[in-house]
Amino acid sequence: MPECLVFRVPTRHPADVLGLDALIESGTVAPDEIVAVFGKTEGNGCVNDFTRPLAVMALENALAARLGLSPAEVGARVALVMSGGTEGGLSPHLLILARREGPAAEGRALAVGTAFTDDFLPEEIGRMAQVRATEAAVARAMAAAGLTDVADVHFVQVKCPLLTSARIQEAAARGARVATHDTYASMGLSRGASALGIGLALAEIDGSALDDTVIGARTDLYSGRASASAGIELMRNEVIVLGNAPGWSGPLRIAHRVMRDGIDFSAIQGALADLGFPVAGQLPPEAAARVVALLAKAEPSGNGLIRGRRHIMNDDSDINATRHARALVGGVAAAAIGRTDLFVSGGAEHQGPDGGGPVAVIAAMEG
Amino acid sequence: MPECLVFRVPTRHPADVLGLDALIESGTVAPDEIVAVFGKTEGNGCVNDFTRPLAVMALENALAARLGLSPAEVGARVALVMSGGTEGGLSPHLLILARREGPAAEGRALAVGTAFTDDFLPEEIGRMAQVRATEAAVARAMAAAGLTDVADVHFVQVKCPLLTSARIQEAAARGARVATHDTYASMGLSRGASALGIGLALAEIDGSALDDTVIGARTDLYSGRASASAGIELMRNEVIVLGNAPGWSGPLRIAHRVMRDGIDFSAIQGALADLGFPVAGQLPPEAAARVVALLAKAEPSGNGLIRGRRHIMNDDSDINATRHARALVGGVAAAAIGRTDLFVSGGAEHQGPDGGGPVAVIAAMEG
Amino acid sequence: MPECLVFRVPTRHPADVLGLDALIESGTVAPDEIVAVFGKTEGNGCVNDFTRPLAVMALENALAARLGLSPAEVGARVALVMSGGTEGGLSPHLLILARREGPAAEGRALAVGTAFTDDFLPEEIGRMAQVRATEAAVARAMAAAGLTDVADVHFVQVKCPLLTSARIQEAAARGARVATHDTYASMGLSRGASALGIGLALAEIDGSALDDTVIGARTDLYSGRASASAGIELMRNEVIVLGNAPGWSGPLRIAHRVMRDGIDFSAIQGALADLGFPVAGQLPPEAAARVVALLAKAEPSGNGLIRGRRHIMNDDSDINATRHARALVGGVAAAAIGRTDLFVSGGAEHQGPDGGGPVAVIAAMEG
Amino acid sequence: MPECLVFRVPTRHPADVLGLDALIESGTVAPDEIVAVFGKTEGNGCVNDFTRPLAVMALENALAARLGLSPAEVGARVALVMSGGTEGGLSPHLLILARREGPAAEGRALAVGTAFTDDFLPEEIGRMAQVRATEAAVARAMAAAGLTDVADVHFVQVKCPLLTSARIQEAAARGARVATHDTYASMGLSRGASALGIGLALAEIDGSALDDTVIGARTDLYSGRASASAGIELMRNEVIVLGNAPGWSGPLRIAHRVMRDGIDFSAIQGALADLGFPVAGQLPPEAAARVVALLAKAEPSGNGLIRGRRHIMNDDSDINATRHARALVGGVAAAAIGRTDLFVSGGAEHQGPDGGGPVAVIAAMEG
Repeated sequence: MPECLVFRVPTRHPADVLGLDALIESGTVAPDEIVAVFGKTEGNGCVNDFTRPLAVMALENALAARLGLSPAEVGARVALVMSGGTEGGLSPHLLILARREGPAAEGRALAVGTAFTDDFLPEEIGRMAQVRATEAAVARAMAAAGLTDVADVHFVQVKCPLLTSARIQEAAARGARVATHDTYASMGLSRGASALGIGLALAEIDGSALDDTVIGARTDLYSGRASASAGIELMRNEVIVLGNAPGWSGPLRIAHRVMRDGIDFSAIQGALADLGFPVAGQLPPEAAARVVALLAKAEPSGNGLIRGRRHIMNDDSDINATRHARALVGGVAAAAIGRTDLFVSGGAEHQGPDGGGPVAVIAAMEG
Repeated sequence: MPECLVFRVPTRHPADVLGLDALIESGTVAPDEIVAVFGKTEGNGCVNDFTRPLAVMALENALAARLGLSPAEVGARVALVMSGGTEGGLSPHLLILARREGPAAEGRALAVGTAFTDDFLPEEIGRMAQVRATEAAVARAMAAAGLTDVADVHFVQVKCPLLTSARIQEAAARGARVATHDTYASMGLSRGASALGIGLALAEIDGSALDDTVIGARTDLYSGRASASAGIELMRNEVIVLGNAPGWSGPLRIAHRVMRDGIDFSAIQGALADLGFPVAGQLPPEAAARVVALLAKAEPSGNGLIRGRRHIMNDDSDINATRHARALVGGVAAAAIGRTDLFVSGGAEHQGPDGGGPVAVIAAMEG
Repeated sequence: MPECLVFRVPTRHPADVLGLDALIESGTVAPDEIVAVFGKTEGNGCVNDFTRPLAVMALENALAARLGLSPAEVGARVALVMSGGTEGGLSPHLLILARREGPAAEGRALAVGTAFTDDFLPEEIGRMAQVRATEAAVARAMAAAGLTDVADVHFVQVKCPLLTSARIQEAAARGARVATHDTYASMGLSRGASALGIGLALAEIDGSALDDTVIGARTDLYSGRASASAGIELMRNEVIVLGNAPGWSGPLRIAHRVMRDGIDFSAIQGALADLGFPVAGQLPPEAAARVVALLAKAEPSGNGLIRGRRHIMNDDSDINATRHARALVGGVAAAAIGRTDLFVSGGAEHQGPDGGGPVAVIAAMEG
Repeated sequence: MPECLVFRVPTRHPADVLGLDALIESGTVAPDEIVAVFGKTEGNGCVNDFTRPLAVMALENALAARLGLSPAEVGARVALVMSGGTEGGLSPHLLILARREGPAAEGRALAVGTAFTDDFLPEEIGRMAQVRATEAAVARAMAAAGLTDVADVHFVQVKCPLLTSARIQEAAARGARVATHDTYASMGLSRGASALGIGLALAEIDGSALDDTVIGARTDLYSGRASASAGIELMRNEVIVLGNAPGWSGPLRIAHRVMRDGIDFSAIQGALADLGFPVAGQLPPEAAARVVALLAKAEPSGNGLIRGRRHIMNDDSDINATRHARALVGGVAAAAIGRTDLFVSGGAEHQGPDGGGPVAVIAAMEG
C-alpha cells in the first residue's frame, strides 16, 4: 500500500541541498522514493528570476549523485517545481514529496501522482492544445495516484513553459503565430491554459465554454484546485496531483478551499477545520507542528480593489504586482498557521476567482 | 465635554483631498475642529518618497482655503503625519482626527492631544536631546488630552525629522557632529529617539538606562505604544497622543497590544477583545464596520528569523526591508479585520520588540 | 522681434521652485514671459511617478502668485511638461522657456510656439483622432513660432494624456471601446499617436500609411523630431515647437539629429557640429557652458539587441525598461557634453527608430 | 614564450556555457590553458544576486567535464570572477583568459598571472590582514606573469569574500569582532581592503598611511589599477594581474587610465590612444573590433554631485546606487567603444577617486 510522505526543508540559499542530503543520509527518505520537489526560492518570481534554475541545477546534481543518473535524467524523472518569490515574511524552503510502499490501511490518505505531457510547440503555449494536453495529463496523474473520484483531488500543481524571443522566432520561421510576443505575458497565458486543463479534468469547467479566446480573459472560468508555475527550463507541462485516495496509508491528509480574495482568512480556517484543527485564531505551536505544508495561489485583483478598497499592486512600476500579492497572502496565511514556510506562489490565472486562489493544507492527523 | 472624532477617508492618489472636502462640505466635520491628519500614501516610505510632501501640500492647500490661513499656518496648527508605503494589499487612506465640544458624559472615551517640540539642531537628531524633548512633549499632549494616567494612553504617534546632506553640512560648519551621515539611517535614529522619549513619558523605560549609545542599538529598550514616522519637511517633533480619558465623550474607544513579531495575530485579536469584539477569526463585516482605525508598526527582525524560520527582508537589494515588513503585517492585520485600509507604518526602532511593534485599534462601541 | 530665452535651473527636490523664483526676483525673466517649463523629476517615470504632479503643483503655485492667477489658470496658460526619471547620473532640473520682444535681427534664431488640442475622449487616446489633432496643433504652434519651413523645426515636445481605470469605465459606460485597458500601455500608445501626428505635420510620414493599427506597431514609421511624455494630469495634448525661425533674435540656436540606437554618440556630435562645436571628444568646459539644453528620447530596442549584443532591459522585472534606457542614453549624452543636467526622457514610440530617438541641442552661438 | 589570450563570449543567460564549449570544441583554446574567467552576469550585483553562483556552478561543471576534475577542483585552479549587474545597455558576457606557450617575441605583450591568498577569518575581512595578504598575493601574481616593473601592471582584478550572519556569529563565538555586521557594508570593506593591498603592491600608496580605520573612510587613498568584486562563495582573495610584460608574445596589449568621475570620457579615450586608436569620437566598427575588452569600475560619488550637478544615486530607495553607477559608466564607455559588452563593475572603494575608477582596455595591435 503506498504512502505519500512530505518533508518540509528550510533552505539557506537557493542552491542549498544540505537539508535534502540530511534526509537521505539519515535514511528518512530513499532517493528513489522522491517523486517531486516543490521549492519556494527567493528570486523575484518573474521573468529574470535565476534562483529557480539555480535551485534546479543544485537539486539535479544532488539527486544525480544519489541515484547514479545524469542530472538531465533526474529532471526527466522527478518533477522539480521551483516557484520564485518569498516576499514579506515568506521563508524559502523545499517540500519533498515521496512515495513509499507500506502496510495496508483503511480509509483514505494523502496520495500523489505525476504525469508529463509531450513537449509543446511554441504556438501551442497559452492555447487549447496546452489545455487539452493538461487535461489528459491530470487524468494520468490521478490514475497513478489511485484517485478515481475527482472530489478526492485537492491540489494539482503544474509546472509549465513560457515563450522566449528565441522560441517565438523559431515558430515564426515555420509560419506559426504564437499567443503573445511578451515573455511575461506568456507566463500568464501558459499558467492559465494549464489551469483550465485542470478544471476540465476535475469537472469544474464545461469544455464547451473553452476556446483560445477565453484563456487569460474569462476570469469567471477557473479551477479551485489548480496551481501553475511557469519556467523557462522546460517545454512540456509536468503535473503533480495531490488528493486523499483509498488504498493509501500514513497519517497525512490534504484539504482545500478557495480564497475568494487575498484576505480570505476564513478559507484557510475552513481547510484547517476540514483537517480537524481548532479555528479560533492562529494555530497554537503544537497544532502548527502537525501542518506539513500550506500551498496557496496569490494574485492582484484586476479591478484594483479588495472588498471595495483600492490596492496599488497593478500600478506599482517599482515592485511587480505578483510580488505584492504573495506578500499579502503570505501574511494572511501566516496569521492562520503561525509559520512562514508557506508555499505561496503568484500568477493565479484561472486558478480561483480573480484576486483569489486555491489554498490547500497538508497535515498529520492526530492519533 | 470634548469628543474625539475619527474619520477614515479613502484616497484615489496622494493629492486626493476630495474625501476631506466632502466631510467638510456635508458638515460632518468643521475645518477648525481638525487637530491631526494621518495619511498612508503610496510611495516607497523610504528616502525618496515624494508622495508624502505631495499629500502634505494638497492637505495644507485644502485646509488653508477652508480656514482662511496660509498653507504654512495650517502646517503649524494641524499635525500632518504622512507615512509612506502601502505594500501588499494596503489601501491608501487618511485618518482625520478632530476634537469637538459635546455633551457631558460618564466614563472614558477616546481622547486626543497634540504638542510640538521646538526645532532641533541637526546634531540633536537621534540623540538624547530629542529623547528628552519628546518626553516633555508627550506630557504636554497628555495634558491637552486630559489624560492623567499613563495606563490610559494607548498610542502615541510622532512625526520626526531626518538628516539631509545640507543639514549635516550646516552642523559641520558650526563644528557640530551629527549622529550619522546616512540619510536613511538618520530616519531610524530619529524614530528611535522619539520612541524612547515616549517610553520615558509613559514610564515604560527607566531613564537611567538611556544615553546616546543605546539609541538604535539596545533593542530590548522600547515603548509598547510608540509609533514614529520620519520626514524631511520638518525639524521638530510633532506628538499626537491617543487614549481613553475621563471627561471625553462619544462612542469611540482605543485599545492596544504589542505584536511580538510580524505574524502575531493574537496581539491584534487581543486589542479587538479589549474593545468587545468576538475573536474567533476574521471580523464579520458588521463588526468590521465598527473598527474606525487600526494602527501598527512593522519592521524586519534583525536576526533574520520569524519564529525560527529565515526571512529575506534584510538581504533584498531590490526591495527595501521596511516595504516587505509593511506588506507582511498588513496581511496579518487584514486577516483579523477583513479590511485593508489599515495604518501600517515601517521603522519600529524602540517601538515594540525587535521584529514586532505596537498595534492599536480604535472602534465604536455598540449601543 | 521675438526672442526665445531658455534657462536651465537645477532642482534640489521635485517641488523646488527657488531657482525659478531667483530668476524672477533678479529680473532675469518676467513671469508673463514664460511659455513653457520642461522638468526632469526624480521619480520612476512610469505609472506611479508622483514627482510629476508634485512639481506641477509647486510650479503652478509659484507662478500663480507671481501672475495673480489661480494655479489652474497657470496650467491653462503655461505648458508644464514634467518628465520623470533621472536614472544613472542624470541631474534633476527645469528648462524654462520664455518669449520676449526684443530688437530686430537678421537670420534665424531659436523660436518657440505652443498650441493645445481640445480634451480627448478616452477612446480617442492612442487612436487616429489623437494623431490628427496633434498634426493640427503642430501647425498652429509652428505658426505661433513664425516657423513656415518644416526643415526649420528641430524638436517638438508633446505632453499627452493616459488612460486610467476611471476613464476606461467612463468610456465603457457610453459604449465606447478604448485602445487598451492597461494604463502603462496607454502611455505608450498616447505617446506614439502624438509622435505620428508630429511626423505628419513635419512631412516625415505619409498620412496614407496611417490607421489605428499602426500605432505602437509599425516601428518603421516615426518622426525624427518628436518627443512625447504622458501624464495623468491632463486630457489634451500640449504641443511645444522649437526651431530656428526667421525674425527671431538672440544668441540661441537649435539643431537635431536622430540617434539610431542608444549608443549613437555620433548623432550627438552631429548636432553639436551643426552648432559649431568641436567634435573631437567630450566638450571642454568653456564649450559645454554654451550648451543650454540637450533633449533626447530613450527606449530599449524591441529585439533585445544593441548592435548585435544582448541587452536585458526588456527582461528585468525589478527595474522598468525605460529606466535602463534613460540611464544608458544619459551616459552617452554626458560623455559628449560633460554635463549631467540633460533632458533625457523615456518612451520613444514612433520617435526615432526602434531603440533610438531624436536628440536636440540648444546652444548659444559664439560672438 | 607565453602568450595571454583573451576571448570575449556573449552569454544568453547566466548559466550559458555554450560559447565556452564552442571555443574548446573548435580547438581555439584548450581547457587546461584557461587561467581565469571574468563574467558580467545579469543580477543586481548586490547582496541577493544569485546569477553569480549560478554562473560559477555552470562554469565549474563545464570545465570539470573537460578537465577530468571535480567542480571544486576547477574552482581551486581557475579564478572565476563573476560580477553582477548589467544595467542600462550593458551586455552579459564572459572574458576567458588563457595562457599558452608560443614562439619567442620581442618587446612587451599582454601578460596574466594569478595568485590566491589563504582563507581569511571573518574578523580579517575589511581589515589590515586582508590588505597585507593581498599585497603579497599581487607580488606573487606579478611574478607569475613575469612583470617586474609595477609601471607595466595595468589592471589587477580581485575576487574577495564578504561577511554573512553565519560567519559573523562564528567569529563572535571565538570572541572575535568583525569589521561590520552589515553584509552589504562588508562587501565594500572587503573590496576596499583588497584595493589598498593592490595599491601597496604597486607602490601607489604609502603603507605608513594605512590602518584599519582608513579602510572605507579615506577616499583619497586609492589604487588607479585595482578592481575588486565581492562574493559569498569564497573566503580567500583571488588575484589576477594583467600587464604588458617582456617575454610575452601575441598581438594583445593593455592600457589603463583613471576616470576622475563617472562621465570622464577623456580617460577612456586616453587608454585607447595609448593603444594607438584614433580618438575623435566613437571608434568606427573596424577599430572597435580590435578592442577585446574594456574593464572599468563605477560608483556614485559620496557628495551627491557630478561636476557640481546633483545625482540621485545615493538617495534612491528603489534602485541601489551601484546599479545606477554601472548604467552610467556603461553608457559613457559604450559611447567611446561603440559596443556594450563591457566589463563594468560596481563598488570602487579605494579603486580610483571617489565617484571615479580605473578603466583598462585590452586590444589587438594592428599589423
